[in-house]
Amino acid sequence: MRDLTVGVDVGGTKVAGGLVTPKGHLVKSVVTPVRAFDGVKTSFMQVRRVIERLIAQAGGKGNIRGIGLCSPGALDRRTGLVINAPNLPGWENLHLVKELEKIFNLPARVENDANAAGLAEALYGAGMGYREVFYVTVSTGIGTGIIIDGNIYRGNQGVAGEGGHVCIDYNSPYRCTCGTLGCIEVLASGPAMARRARVRLEQEHAVPSLLRTMTNGKLHLISPEMIADAARAGDAVANSVLDDTGFYLGVWLGSMISLLDPGAIVIGGGVARIGKPLFAKIRNTILHYTLNPKLAQKIPIVPAKLQQNVGIYGAASLFRPGQDGNRS
Amino acid sequence: MRDLTVGVDVGGTKVAGGLVTPKGHLVKSVVTPVRAFDGVKTSFMQVRRVIERLIAQAGGKGNIRGIGLCSPGALDRRTGLVINAPNLPGWENLHLVKELEKIFNLPARVENDANAAGLAEALYGAGMGYREVFYVTVSTGIGTGIIIDGNIYRGNQGVAGEGGHVCIDYNSPYRCTCGTLGCIEVLASGPAMARRARVRLEQEHAVPSLLRTMTNGKLHLISPEMIADAARAGDAVANSVLDDTGFYLGVWLGSMISLLDPGAIVIGGGVARIGKPLFAKIRNTILHYTLNPKLAQKIPIVPAKLQQNVGIYGAASLFRPGQDGNRS
Repeated sequence: MRDLTVGVDVGGTKVAGGLVTPKGHLVKSVVTPVRAFDGVKTSFMQVRRVIERLIAQAGGKGNIRGIGLCSPGALDRRTGLVINAPNLPGWENLHLVKELEKIFNLPARVENDANAAGLAEALYGAGMGYREVFYVTVSTGIGTGIIIDGNIYRGNQGVAGEGGHVCIDYNSPYRCTCGTLGCIEVLASGPAMARRARVRLEQEHAVPSLLRTMTNGKLHLISPEMIADAARAGDAVANSVLDDTGFYLGVWLGSMISLLDPGAIVIGGGVARIGKPLFAKIRNTILHYTLNPKLAQKIPIVPAKLQQNVGIYGAASLFRPGQDGNRS
Repeated sequence: MRDLTVGVDVGGTKVAGGLVTPKGHLVKSVVTPVRAFDGVKTSFMQVRRVIERLIAQAGGKGNIRGIGLCSPGALDRRTGLVINAPNLPGWENLHLVKELEKIFNLPARVENDANAAGLAEALYGAGMGYREVFYVTVSTGIGTGIIIDGNIYRGNQGVAGEGGHVCIDYNSPYRCTCGTLGCIEVLASGPAMARRARVRLEQEHAVPSLLRTMTNGKLHLISPEMIADAARAGDAVANSVLDDTGFYLGVWLGSMISLLDPGAIVIGGGVARIGKPLFAKIRNTILHYTLNPKLAQKIPIVPAKLQQNVGIYGAASLFRPGQDGNRS
């Protein structure tokens, strides 16, 4: 009965793994803080241990269909090679899939974390029932996943779905680490929100703001969570930052709708947890930056559902029946 | 032997129809200037006559698999309804497919012209052999088509592929007829090029330019073709307009590559015929506005091949084996 899949979400702060049934039920899970800065040997061993524990809990390898992993950063899904993962020092040119297949003698697959999360949301979360789902995660970066008919759209070289680097302001003063000026990630991610608040408060010394008190004047400590809290308490600067962020996301999603006409847009990640005020601004802006506002208005723009286990579900979904792991 | 398809390209200036074999050979064609301004009765009758002539040339209805049409403007492909076609006065809420099916007692299908042209280029033109083709046509407007595995990607409401309305400058002074500020169509289409040249020459009265001579000072007569000619003759203003246009297209295509990772990008339409200087600028700019310049560099960015018959091929392709005309 090889019907369980090991799903492992390898992040910069924790390794979260679980056993998932073919119907998408998470039956066991293991989470361990990752000792990323001890280097690749240590962190890879941690991943290995999580998988070992899950296989034991499944009653042995005989019950495992495969090992699915998701990880941030650049990777070649076809060869299972992690090219680099910025939050995992030493994870460079790591043959993750080959190594694990050798160790466990089980098939393994790896996927970009935003694609995996998008697949999970489309199959089991807020995107259930829609044939085309555009998944967005807004946190330290902005990741996206295009899911068509329950499959990740991967493009020709396997790197499609990087909608976070779509440019909405080619003349922006802000350059993303990707090299692009004014892509949505550099304008609307968590760090972009913090930067915006800080710059405003530095430029206008007289403007009062809860953010000054919350950080004790150390404006570099401003976080998206603080901005959300301050906005809720009525802080004008925090609210204007939320408003700008919603506007940028709306401009961008208006374009994505013109291009992709998805059945639903699912937004996850820490910044999305700000909720209503952000979603309201996004929805409103879309109507001014898309070809068919009447059709755009029909598209549900909903918060993600699967929360902290989304990566486990997504990684496990790579072995869902019908997923061959190799097609777009 | 029902193996021929009638393909009809209904444009604002001509109706072009042809008979196409299942392997994509055009065996007969008929072109007639459309009397668009005589109203829908006249222009619809012209379309009907073209189809009648082609059926006669095929040796009768028994040899026809179906009638495929493509048309600019907004249409609902699933119901075969033309919502409106800006260049065809009176083509509003026209049940094109139903009408033709009633008249000819043959199955009919209609598709947006950029999608149809993209399909044709992917199947028989410059995109042959690539699984994911991003097709672009730059002329009066900017249209795009996303072709995946020999099928048009249509999205959930059937209106996907309107990449011409992706915004690259949310703060632009130019608003597109679609309502969006700074979408690529309003910045880089033929009329946008003409506008850019005119504005520059109006603002700087002292700047000499061949475009002044070519238009006899009537700057509103500047056309993209004139700009191309003047640029070839070394005119500085014309060259700067070409350069800007290539830059905008490059910024936009850099984003499209990050998102879609296509196997090839095929560029058609009148403006694309400017050729080398434009393509060079596009290719160079993409590398500065995309996530993976090394991977982007591998993507062929090529001129369209099928020229004036692209619409006929595309329309006929709607009845290619495997095309059910209804799925994304």
